[in-house]
Amino acid sequence: MALESEVRLPRGFSAGALASGIKPSGKLDLALLYSEREANWAYAATSNRAAAPCVLRGRRLYDAGSGLRGLIVNSGNANCATGVRGVKDDLRMAELAARFLQIEADSLLTASTGVIGVPLAIEKIEKALPGMQMSSSAGSFARAILTTDTRPKVAARELSGGARIVGVAKGSGMIHPNMATMLAYILSDAEVPRSEMVKKWPLIVDATFNQTTVDGDTSTNDMAVLVSNGVAGSVDAQEFWRTVEDVATDLARQIARDGEGAEKLITVHVSGARELREARQAARTIAGSTLWKAAVHGNDPNWGRILAALGRSGARFDPERARIKLQGSLIYDGGAVPFNGVEVQAAMQAAEVVVEVELANGEATASAWGCDLTEAYVKINAEYTT
Amino acid sequence: MALESEVRLPRGFSAGALASGIKPSGKLDLALLYSEREANWAYAATSNRAAAPCVLRGRRLYDAGSGLRGLIVNSGNANCATGVRGVKDDLRMAELAARFLQIEADSLLTASTGVIGVPLAIEKIEKALPGMQMSSSAGSFARAILTTDTRPKVAARELSGGARIVGVAKGSGMIHPNMATMLAYILSDAEVPRSEMVKKWPLIVDATFNQTTVDGDTSTNDMAVLVSNGVAGSVDAQEFWRTVEDVATDLARQIARDGEGAEKLITVHVSGARELREARQAARTIAGSTLWKAAVHGNDPNWGRILAALGRSGARFDPERARIKLQGSLIYDGGAVPFNGVEVQAAMQAAEVVVEVELANGEATASAWGCDLTEAYVKINAEYTT
Repeated sequence: MALESEVRLPRGFSAGALASGIKPSGKLDLALLYSEREANWAYAATSNRAAAPCVLRGRRLYDAGSGLRGLIVNSGNANCATGVRGVKDDLRMAELAARFLQIEADSLLTASTGVIGVPLAIEKIEKALPGMQMSSSAGSFARAILTTDTRPKVAARELSGGARIVGVAKGSGMIHPNMATMLAYILSDAEVPRSEMVKKWPLIVDATFNQTTVDGDTSTNDMAVLVSNGVAGSVDAQEFWRTVEDVATDLARQIARDGEGAEKLITVHVSGARELREARQAARTIAGSTLWKAAVHGNDPNWGRILAALGRSGARFDPERARIKLQGSLIYDGGAVPFNGVEVQAAMQAAEVVVEVELANGEATASAWGCDLTEAYVKINAEYTT
Repeated sequence: MALESEVRLPRGFSAGALASGIKPSGKLDLALLYSEREANWAYAATSNRAAAPCVLRGRRLYDAGSGLRGLIVNSGNANCATGVRGVKDDLRMAELAARFLQIEADSLLTASTGVIGVPLAIEKIEKALPGMQMSSSAGSFARAILTTDTRPKVAARELSGGARIVGVAKGSGMIHPNMATMLAYILSDAEVPRSEMVKKWPLIVDATFNQTTVDGDTSTNDMAVLVSNGVAGSVDAQEFWRTVEDVATDLARQIARDGEGAEKLITVHVSGARELREARQAARTIAGSTLWKAAVHGNDPNWGRILAALGRSGARFDPERARIKLQGSLIYDGGAVPFNGVEVQAAMQAAEVVVEVELANGEATASAWGCDLTEAYVKINAEYTT
C-alpha cells in the first residue's frame, strides 16, 4: 500500500488537519473535510445509550435527509457525558467549521473521540480553525483523528471507470460491535443514489466494522459514514459496492491489527452455520474471547478455548461434527486430532493468525477480526487518564 | 473466617482427597464426597454447547429425579471434547467411586475441571481411589478441586436450630455467566423438600454465581449443586434459603477475588433499574468491562468507562439522571462532578473496589462481582498449555 500521506482524496474533496492544543502532546487533533459538491451519504452509529452529542446530531441530520458538504473531527476529547454544555459545544464546533468552509452548518457532520466526561476546549478549536490548510491529500486527516492508535488507517481503490473510493478510519481500544470507538469515513466521487446508499451501507457495516472487536467495550462516539459526491459521474453499481466492502474490510482489519497493545491480527472465518446471524456471532465470539486472545499472544494452539468460545456463542452445532483449522492446519475434527504442535506454534508467530471453523450445520459464512491480548494492553488501559 | 482445613462438613457427610497423578505437579486432584443418607439436591450447569460428559450426565440424573449419595471430582483435566472415550471415562469414574463408597452409580455425580481435549487418565483414578481416606473436614476436598485457583474457597454458616450449611467452590479463569468454569457445592444437613430446592436453587444461582465474571469466557464444565441430606431435621425455610444465598454470595465473591492474575475484587451494585434483568445485565457488564477492569488495576477513577459499559449493557436509563459512586464517593451525577481524585485513587488501592450505580429509572437492584485485569492474567493465559 502507498504511504497514507500519498493517498489522494477522490475528486471534489479536500481535507486539512492541525494541532489545536486539545491534545497536550501537541499532536494533530483537528481534522476537516470539504466536498465541493453536495454529497449523498449514509450513516451508522453506536448503539450505546450514553451516545455523545455528535452521534445524536449526526443521526438527526441523517434522518432529515440533508446533503453533506463537510466533516469536522476532533481527537483527544470525546465530548461525551458533558451535559448541556457538551451539546452546545458540539453545535458550536459545527458552526465554526461551516463558517470557515462557507457552507450550511446542517450540511456538516461533527465527531469527537478521546476521553469521556471532560468539557471540550471549544475555544482552542475556534482559535485554531482559521489556520487550517486544505489539500487533496488524505494523510493528515487520517493522522488527526487518531487517539491511542499507533498507525493511521487508510485504504484506497480505483474503479474501472476512474472513480475512486478512499477510506480513513481510527480505532484502537473500546472496539466492539456495535460500533466500537471507531470512526470510519469512506469517501467516493462516484455518483450513487441516496436510496441505494441508505439500503446497502448498514449491510456492509454489519459485515465489516461490526465484526471487529478489540476488547468487548462498545464506545459512546462511534460512527461509520459513507460519502459520495458524484463528481466522477455514474459507475457500475455492483463494482462500486464490492469495492466499498473491500475498503471497509481493509479498514476493519487495520483497526483490529492496531488494537491497543496488540501484536497480531486474529482473523476468524466461520462456515457451515445455520444462519448468517449465528455465523457472525460465532466468528465474533472467538475473535473476542479473552482466553483465546491470550493464547494467540503466547503462540498456543489451545483449541479447547476456541471450542469453548464457540459453545457459548449461541451458534447451533454439534461438537462432534465441527472442524477447526489454525494457520491452515487441522487441529480439531469432531474431537482431538494429532497435529504437529511445534509447526503450528511456529506458524502462530506470524503477524496474522487465521482460525477457520466449519460448523457442518448449514450454509452461512462470516468473518470477524480481533487481536491478541498482551501485557501492553493492560498497561495502556491501567494508565490512560491518570 | 476459620481456616478452610478446620471447617467441618454438615452432619452425615464425609469427604476425602488425594493426588492421583492427573496433575503432573503431584498436587491433590481427586475429591470424593459421601452422604450417609440419600440427599435431595438441585443442579445448575453450564449453557455451553460443548458441555462435557459430566455435565450431560449430571443433567440426566437430575431430570430423572434420583437421590444423591456422593460426588467425585477430578481436577487437572476437564474430560471435555474427548469424544466417545470421554463419555465412557466419565461413566467409569462414577462406577469406580460408587463401588468404593458402596452406593449406586446413579446416586453419584461426577465433575471434571482442567484442560480441554486431553483424554482422562482414568487408570490413575482407578489405581488411586482405594487409598482415599474419608473424614468430616471440608478442607482437602476444597483443595483437590482447584485448577489455577490460588486459594481454596469455603464458606460455612450455622442455622439457629443447629443445622449447618457448608459451601466449597473452585473457579479462577473462564469465569462468566452462565456458568463459568466454576464448581460449587453447597451442602447441608437440613431437611428440605426436593420440590422447594428445584424451585429456589436456580434463583439463587442467577443472583450469585451467574453474576460473577472473570474474563467473559463461559466454560464447558461448570456446575453448581445444592445437596441437603436431612440428617439434622427440619429447619425454618426462610432462614435456610437466606443462608444458602449468603453462602453462595460468599463463594461467588471468593471466586471473583481469586480471578486469574487478579489483585482486587470488583463489586458492582446497581439500583433503580426498570427490571431485574436489566439491573443484573448492567452490574455484570460493568464488572466484566475489560477497560474498567484495567482502570481498577491502575487505581484510575475513570467513570467514563463505567458509563460507556452501562450504555452498552442494554439497561434503559437516562445518562443525565444516573449517579455513580466509587468507594463511597460520588463521581458522576448526571454528568461530571468535582471529586477529590487523589482521595478516590487512594481508596481504590483497597482489596475490594465497590461501584454503586443508581439508574433512577425504576426499583430493580442487582449485584455482580469481578476482578481487575492485570499483566499477570495475560501471562497466565498465554502460557497455560505450552
